[in-house]
Amino acid sequence: MTEYDLPLAARQPYTWGNADTPGHLPAAAADALAVLGAVPTDPPVPAKDAHVPDTALPATATAELAAMLGANRLTCEHAARVEHTRGYSTTDLLTLRGGDASDAPDAVVFPGSTEDVVAVLDICSRHRIAVVPYAGGTSVVGGLTPARDGFAGVLAMDLRRLNRLVHIDAVSRTAVLQAGMRGVTAEQLLGERGYTLGHFPQSYEMATIGGYAAARSAGQSSAGYGRFDEMVVGLTLATARGPLSLGAAPMSSAGPDLRQLVLGSEGAFGVITSVTARIRPTPAARVFEGWRFDSFAEGATALRALAQDGPLPTVLRLSDEAETAINLADPGAAGSAGAGGCLAVVGYEGTEEWVAATRADATKRLLEHGGTQQGEPAGERWRTGRFRGPYLRDPLLDAGVLVETMETATFWSGLPALKAAVTEAVQGALGVPGLVMCHISHVYETGASLYFTVVAKQTEDPVRQWRRAKTAALAAIDEHGAAVSHHHGVGTDHRAALEQQLGPIGTDLLRAIKASLDPAGVLNPGVLIG
Amino acid sequence: MTEYDLPLAARQPYTWGNADTPGHLPAAAADALAVLGAVPTDPPVPAKDAHVPDTALPATATAELAAMLGANRLTCEHAARVEHTRGYSTTDLLTLRGGDASDAPDAVVFPGSTEDVVAVLDICSRHRIAVVPYAGGTSVVGGLTPARDGFAGVLAMDLRRLNRLVHIDAVSRTAVLQAGMRGVTAEQLLGERGYTLGHFPQSYEMATIGGYAAARSAGQSSAGYGRFDEMVVGLTLATARGPLSLGAAPMSSAGPDLRQLVLGSEGAFGVITSVTARIRPTPAARVFEGWRFDSFAEGATALRALAQDGPLPTVLRLSDEAETAINLADPGAAGSAGAGGCLAVVGYEGTEEWVAATRADATKRLLEHGGTQQGEPAGERWRTGRFRGPYLRDPLLDAGVLVETMETATFWSGLPALKAAVTEAVQGALGVPGLVMCHISHVYETGASLYFTVVAKQTEDPVRQWRRAKTAALAAIDEHGAAVSHHHGVGTDHRAALEQQLGPIGTDLLRAIKASLDPAGVLNPGVLIG
Repeated sequence: MTEYDLPLAARQPYTWGNADTPGHLPAAAADALAVLGAVPTDPPVPAKDAHVPDTALPATATAELAAMLGANRLTCEHAARVEHTRGYSTTDLLTLRGGDASDAPDAVVFPGSTEDVVAVLDICSRHRIAVVPYAGGTSVVGGLTPARDGFAGVLAMDLRRLNRLVHIDAVSRTAVLQAGMRGVTAEQLLGERGYTLGHFPQSYEMATIGGYAAARSAGQSSAGYGRFDEMVVGLTLATARGPLSLGAAPMSSAGPDLRQLVLGSEGAFGVITSVTARIRPTPAARVFEGWRFDSFAEGATALRALAQDGPLPTVLRLSDEAETAINLADPGAAGSAGAGGCLAVVGYEGTEEWVAATRADATKRLLEHGGTQQGEPAGERWRTGRFRGPYLRDPLLDAGVLVETMETATFWSGLPALKAAVTEAVQGALGVPGLVMCHISHVYETGASLYFTVVAKQTEDPVRQWRRAKTAALAAIDEHGAAVSHHHGVGTDHRAALEQQLGPIGTDLLRAIKASLDPAGVLNPGVLIG
Repeated sequence: MTEYDLPLAARQPYTWGNADTPGHLPAAAADALAVLGAVPTDPPVPAKDAHVPDTALPATATAELAAMLGANRLTCEHAARVEHTRGYSTTDLLTLRGGDASDAPDAVVFPGSTEDVVAVLDICSRHRIAVVPYAGGTSVVGGLTPARDGFAGVLAMDLRRLNRLVHIDAVSRTAVLQAGMRGVTAEQLLGERGYTLGHFPQSYEMATIGGYAAARSAGQSSAGYGRFDEMVVGLTLATARGPLSLGAAPMSSAGPDLRQLVLGSEGAFGVITSVTARIRPTPAARVFEGWRFDSFAEGATALRALAQDGPLPTVLRLSDEAETAINLADPGAAGSAGAGGCLAVVGYEGTEEWVAATRADATKRLLEHGGTQQGEPAGERWRTGRFRGPYLRDPLLDAGVLVETMETATFWSGLPALKAAVTEAVQGALGVPGLVMCHISHVYETGASLYFTVVAKQTEDPVRQWRRAKTAALAAIDEHGAAVSHHHGVGTDHRAALEQQLGPIGTDLLRAIKASLDPAGVLNPGVLIG
């Protein structure tokens, strides 16, 4: 029995989340799909039949790894290789559904400590084996498909054994969490002790602490709890040269903040093995409610007012007219916001007093900015339905629909033009009429994120179809000087766009950092930086 | 006439601040000085008589620089060289007061644009001339005394011409400020337009925007406005290879946050030429008040309660028993807190409603935590006297007193042990009985800063006396795993301590970053990283 046989993940390869609760399209979706003209696709090739190349790993390297970790902590089994192939972008899924697992790693290892990780990296550096750090596997930007050229093989390093809550400092309100721990598990263990991270990205059911840090994740409660990178006060990065521990204090002026280099490093500089994160007491009270604005512009102005002048709720989110009309976030209630306009979700979590006072104050300001209250059921429907969204992609793909998301961020003054430009670019590149919906889900004093959901009929080659749309969107983002990604990361999909934005000086800087920490260049080659 | 003749700084070399308002010791200080046994020192050697070495700059390089910038933008005059010698640490002042300006730059240049800076760096890279970026000149950690060995000379690059408020984005609430602008000027220009940065370090009268960013400054209002590094959303860094512009959005997941590498880079990677900073409306209301706690431990618990559970005032500061007794922060009122205990200053700035509501809530919590109200006069005395503190060092040095400050930060749970260890280390290393006072002036959810003021009789070699004390303090900081600096920076004084804390992997990483951005290694050699 290998570690792989441990029933740690209930999911199946290339469908989202818990296999016991698959997604089903609501009846109301049928009309929309009919309008798109989508035609159901062939059923996916089962994972067991997916094509993987022969394992290329040199026998000497395999023997060294097995000797170091133990034979049951290395596997070349077909199922394990397929499970560790690619992530959860729509192009990843389309590729895998077609039975193409040619990007499969040659083997999967299961290190149990920072020392194990260092030793694996040392072995792989000597044998020139590419290493893909793997935890939740939820990358939607090609973060799990490193370059293979010039390498003796590709090893997936599954971090599921790094699964401990190491320490809670109740006075400082920090917790040391190992990187392979899923967000769900972290919340459960912290919750038993009266704490929460307050980090709930839509990938919550699968994503891990290490992935949150490596990709600079942002969750639905970012207005109140901050992004994950804002929660991190310390990290341990395992490199081929040994571990690097960072975070002597909450903040410091002892040179550049090297934590901010590890955050967002996407496994290309080293492997994050533990994170020290700020924790907060479990909130005693919670209220989520719906608001309606006549237009996205009006709603955005209201959100900006709260972000800049307060009070800041815990959750602040605004769907545009298209997203509100489709009511994608709330499929069970499609049509309930039929009065048009834009739906906002505003949530408050904290002590009873804080929730009451903040809600009263925010309500006043939202009313001043033209909002109309839609009540708690609209907010609660969103909150409880929130993590079901990703489950819908599987049946949509079955139905022949291309569905994918992308996101960016900019300063408030540039938001309207950026939204229009990305929408137009994507619509012009899909090859068929498509629906481009958008929402703001993360706000700052100086700007906000824009999150787009794209739905269209799949054309003959849907992978190319999406690549064209994405390339057009990235060109629009570049033209507006906006962020290449707000919380999905770079991976391989955004690498060229990042290099374009950074220019040669910034790009060389990233390469120099990688060369210092990963001298053999085996860590996630081609991810983040080429 | 050179740029140097422009009356941009009213200060004299090696005395603090505005020469028209020198510091005078209050009468009450005489008793304390008598207890220390301090003996007045010889008067300082006038700046005009200070010894500077012959200018070593190669004539070809001088000609190239003059041709590029204009002859009136380069000077080798004695006065200019002395003015740009060293910074404002006590050891800097002691050295200069003794007439030793052997660390003087060979020449001073006055670039007027990012392009100028890039061109100067290119020339200096080719001629292997060390470059010291110079703006406010307020480093207290040896940030202006680079290594000279192996260089053809040292050039001070004075940024005073980079003095423009380039742009205000009122919607996004950001301002683009050039790096050579003093904080005072920035506040004046922003104030005329209804905004503030809210950044008021004790160096405020002299320090600049670029220095704030390069050294990760923190000001008195950090609880409300954040540290300066938290205000920065974009920067331009001039390197010998060209400019690097960073900051496409408030936050991003497009890889590591490279802004956080430029923040804290202390002129060793490039020259920050402009900063895009978050601005806020000028506060309509302000209240500062004094509070008293029976002990530092009790006061720290109260501050922690506000930092963790709110509400967060704009200013939160707690002096320990020793500092409260001396009442250094409020010399005009020495003895007014004679009831013993610890004085806290709590300040609120914002809208009338926010100040009223936050103050009411914070007052309740501070009372719950054992605080007793000392009224607004105690707070106002601190607020208005705050920037006079640094002026007192000059007459104290005249009086034969060694006076210097140092600071660190750690997580809340480690604060008491760190404070005790640093105090003991310094007292044991001064060679004479000394007074070590401490305050908390910057709080976070997970920890806080500790700021120490040390007062003792100068022994025969006060420079060595302080170095011994500082070395002992840094050893204690290292032993407790705390920050090498919370807001003063690294410079040359903390470099060894930073390298010790980072270890070889982190230290090599900083070197690799420097090598990428400053391939000739001419920028502030030996500052931040060796």
